[in-house]
Amino acid sequence: MAQKALALSTDAGYTGYGDEQGNKDLREAIANVVYKDKGVKWDEVFISDGAQCDISRLQMLLGSGVTAAVQDPTFPAYVDSSIIVGQAGKFQEETGKFQNIVYMRCCPENDFFPDLATTPRTDVIFFCSPNNPTGAAASRTQLEQLVEFAKANGSIIVYDSAYASYISDESPRSIFEIPGAKEVAIEISSFSKFAGFTGVRLGWAVVPKELKYSNGFPVIKDFNRIVCTCFNGASNIAQAGGLASLSNDGYQALCRSIDFYHENADIIIDAFTSLGIKVYGGKNAPYAWVQFPGRSSWEVFDEILERAHVVTVPGAGFGPGGEGYIRVSAFGRRECMLEASRRLKSLLK
Amino acid sequence: MAQKALALSTDAGYTGYGDEQGNKDLREAIANVVYKDKGVKWDEVFISDGAQCDISRLQMLLGSGVTAAVQDPTFPAYVDSSIIVGQAGKFQEETGKFQNIVYMRCCPENDFFPDLATTPRTDVIFFCSPNNPTGAAASRTQLEQLVEFAKANGSIIVYDSAYASYISDESPRSIFEIPGAKEVAIEISSFSKFAGFTGVRLGWAVVPKELKYSNGFPVIKDFNRIVCTCFNGASNIAQAGGLASLSNDGYQALCRSIDFYHENADIIIDAFTSLGIKVYGGKNAPYAWVQFPGRSSWEVFDEILERAHVVTVPGAGFGPGGEGYIRVSAFGRRECMLEASRRLKSLLK
Repeated sequence: MAQKALALSTDAGYTGYGDEQGNKDLREAIANVVYKDKGVKWDEVFISDGAQCDISRLQMLLGSGVTAAVQDPTFPAYVDSSIIVGQAGKFQEETGKFQNIVYMRCCPENDFFPDLATTPRTDVIFFCSPNNPTGAAASRTQLEQLVEFAKANGSIIVYDSAYASYISDESPRSIFEIPGAKEVAIEISSFSKFAGFTGVRLGWAVVPKELKYSNGFPVIKDFNRIVCTCFNGASNIAQAGGLASLSNDGYQALCRSIDFYHENADIIIDAFTSLGIKVYGGKNAPYAWVQFPGRSSWEVFDEILERAHVVTVPGAGFGPGGEGYIRVSAFGRRECMLEASRRLKSLLK
Repeated sequence: MAQKALALSTDAGYTGYGDEQGNKDLREAIANVVYKDKGVKWDEVFISDGAQCDISRLQMLLGSGVTAAVQDPTFPAYVDSSIIVGQAGKFQEETGKFQNIVYMRCCPENDFFPDLATTPRTDVIFFCSPNNPTGAAASRTQLEQLVEFAKANGSIIVYDSAYASYISDESPRSIFEIPGAKEVAIEISSFSKFAGFTGVRLGWAVVPKELKYSNGFPVIKDFNRIVCTCFNGASNIAQAGGLASLSNDGYQALCRSIDFYHENADIIIDAFTSLGIKVYGGKNAPYAWVQFPGRSSWEVFDEILERAHVVTVPGAGFGPGGEGYIRVSAFGRRECMLEASRRLKSLLK
């Protein structure tokens, strides 16, 4: 990225606006490296300034007249953008939910995968896997069910794979590993967690050509229009960084970073587990999802913050289904993780 | 920017997500340098990834239920985003206009400023000054009329000042030079033309605290919500570049670049003028707006492209009012401008 920035100040290296969809070499690298053998073509990849921005661009495409389902708990941007674009109804104090949004409960009892037999049909299904905050990655069988469910209902899945690079078991790293998914799913993802690009702003969306509205019109054409009018390409410097991180050397370095964060997650999990506290996540995600049955997540957060000076995230921030949990991040220096572990053990034992 | 990119790879220099609204030091620099003595506070400045993206975020804020007016001709993103968000009606073949959009004709006969006495009231007025493509900068008196018009009608002005740094006469460089403008206007702007940041993606919006809906609710609160949910901040590397370009040394270097492009514009203007062709713009903008009365702008574009191998932009791309004109850019190397001038003179004389 430093080289690209310096090159911009030279006659030979200056580049103006690139393609709104992103530089072709980066689109190709994502198709070839991230989606190797998954059937994604380079011109189905749209480079973005991050998954959160793509969620809102998709909401702009979908408009206010659609119904949406979200996992509960999940990353709040799906519901928040649904409210802004006018899909959601009023907030219901008694349930902590917004009207017109279907909340698909994900909890240990259902292996963090929604019970599709009792889930109402919606036009759109936002599905984050590995899930933020629970850390649960859907299995192949579960994703096959999800694709089948969407196909039967004529729904579009917006699949958020921002944490896919943390998957360490056989769970699919992309919805496009599932046969038929290209007819029902859009995938959004990001360099933020995969390559430590938080704040650099780089991500992508895959909109397959096979995905069509019920009238046969390809969704990719509408998304391309949105990208060209409402966005104008990710920063050329960030894109240079994305390309470098998908080179052989870059990719191997990222894999080592991910291994490091997995070890951090193990430290967190061990700390809570040794105290008899149930922990989920960590294996396929940089987050541990720690259960405090019957307790308010804000109360647990406050107690840990004030008594151990360790910052966690109260689960209730991710939807009503996050109540009784806190999310603990593995993104940090090793000595911080070890110190946090020591403090948690002395606080909670 | 190179230094910031390198710093991100160090323990001391790594920064994660910044504030969604942008880094405070950059917001302060914009308030203090660009808006010196114009009464803009740093926390009314929202850093963005460019004016085009801010236009669409504003459209998301406004929604489909508002009416909009645009200059004709003007930068196409206002109308295009109005269509996407659902404000516009059908395209009318006979006029080249979309229903429900008010086109405010700007031409030599009205000094490129709309006749407000005959302009219908709309909820929003998109106003680009200096205008892309005509290069016309509205005078102080004209902008006072515009602010008065918006105030009388309860309209919001979205003022695009992306080319303000090219103003070389006494025309205001910001709508906020006009008393009372903070009650009716949002200003969007960009580093793209001012600092040569095309492709780096950096801009800003100023949403004054005084701007309120008819129910008294401040617009800035809604815009802040949109920025936090639908955007997540401009690239930290681009923001470092923005800050550098507003330092004393940076700002002086940019002023020299702008002078250089003004000289380029003079070369273009001289070429056409020497042939007896009427040229507007150039003085307060990096664009010359060249008039070919009664001719199709695409036909003129084709002829110049095919016979002189010089690329211009057909005026019709900026709305029906652009017919009969071409836009010629002054962004280029000096030897290219001189060569283009030679070819145009030999072609057209």
